[in-house]
Amino acid sequence: MRKVLIIGIGAGDPEHVTVQAVNAMNAVDVFLVLDKGDTTADLTEARRAICERFATQRPYRTVVIADPPRDRTAADYEGAVRDWRDERARMIEEALLAEAEDAVVGILAWGDPALYDGTIRILDTIAARGNVAVDYAVIPGITSVQVLTARHRIMLNRVAGPVHITTGRRLAAGWPDGCDDVVVMLDADLACRAYRDEDVDIYWGAYLGTPDELLVAGRLGKVVDEIDAVRREARARKGWIMDTYLLRRV
Amino acid sequence: MRKVLIIGIGAGDPEHVTVQAVNAMNAVDVFLVLDKGDTTADLTEARRAICERFATQRPYRTVVIADPPRDRTAADYEGAVRDWRDERARMIEEALLAEAEDAVVGILAWGDPALYDGTIRILDTIAARGNVAVDYAVIPGITSVQVLTARHRIMLNRVAGPVHITTGRRLAAGWPDGCDDVVVMLDADLACRAYRDEDVDIYWGAYLGTPDELLVAGRLGKVVDEIDAVRREARARKGWIMDTYLLRRV
Repeated sequence: MRKVLIIGIGAGDPEHVTVQAVNAMNAVDVFLVLDKGDTTADLTEARRAICERFATQRPYRTVVIADPPRDRTAADYEGAVRDWRDERARMIEEALLAEAEDAVVGILAWGDPALYDGTIRILDTIAARGNVAVDYAVIPGITSVQVLTARHRIMLNRVAGPVHITTGRRLAAGWPDGCDDVVVMLDADLACRAYRDEDVDIYWGAYLGTPDELLVAGRLGKVVDEIDAVRREARARKGWIMDTYLLRRV
Repeated sequence: MRKVLIIGIGAGDPEHVTVQAVNAMNAVDVFLVLDKGDTTADLTEARRAICERFATQRPYRTVVIADPPRDRTAADYEGAVRDWRDERARMIEEALLAEAEDAVVGILAWGDPALYDGTIRILDTIAARGNVAVDYAVIPGITSVQVLTARHRIMLNRVAGPVHITTGRRLAAGWPDGCDDVVVMLDADLACRAYRDEDVDIYWGAYLGTPDELLVAGRLGKVVDEIDAVRREARARKGWIMDTYLLRRV
């Protein structure tokens, strides 16, 4: 039985790591790191720095697994994600089998492992395949959504109101029914532009919790071109961008 | 200019406190505590224990403010919340004015200050009234929703899917449109019972992150009576309950 700790480490600021995550990191014998290649070398480095800062109480090893390529152009988006996850699961299964049975394995997840992260599903897949017995625990982490609201000093919800969390792809298909407060993640194309003529405020942030953090807020129609320019410039300069935003009908 | 730190301290487990929150607590001269009376004495004590454990680097004072009564039976729910918040704001304004101008004031918030918490709105109200100049910062914290998913080892969203966060009161008025994954908070009456005959899974938790934590999961129709019994018993025994759940259409 391999023990795996899926540790949420927050959105980027090492200070967002919880005491529970620090303790978990100090119980780990080997960290599995999925390396997504050059474009996110910053993230790999940030993750390494978090280990180095907090996992100080015992020696640990790091095993880097090259992330399998993912077909981002596939028409069947969910199918492409599933194939990619299966390949990831196979590689992680192999890495787990290479470790001693009593090893504690740590996998660090940006944000919270429960929100738009693949690690829990990978462990479910491995458990279902049955080639290696795994017992895993999940340690929650601060998400970029929480850093977004904290930095803008705003509420996520209005008084007793609902909040909808969705993706850029879904927002492009239409504003969610029955909800005036919408968080958008994984949006490569700034789908909110479609609502620029409506009475909507936007609270946008990129690289949240890092020294590169960018924040823009205002009436959507007034600031969306600025956001578009800021994120294009940042993506060109850094080679990648992670951003999220809250839309609020007023 | 009074500096106020609104510090999210997680849902109950002291280990869910972040490094940033620990550092913030150690910068505080005076903690303002809203005392909600006997029924939540456990919470007041838990908050005191968190201060005692983490705010160790300098002396601090604690000022307890008796929470104003709130009319929970009012037909105008939002209006009643507003009145109650105004009275809270007036009392906190008074407490801030009683402190030295360079004092750092800390207010601890369960979960994350951005989700179903009143502190940010109180500070906005105080700033708008203009009787005392305030500069405030928000420190995010782990919410009960994140502890719920971590303890059940589930994702909040399905692959590239949306998530809707709402209240028991709103769920009682109808299942949210266009979303199969719904988190319900602030539900005194277990409004999910209305969906017991539908193909819905529930992941329920109470007192999440505390030694009293309760978890139940399964097909809604099969486990909802058990959840009802468990929460009635717990509420009778402890005098209060804090619970939340995820509903997932299957």
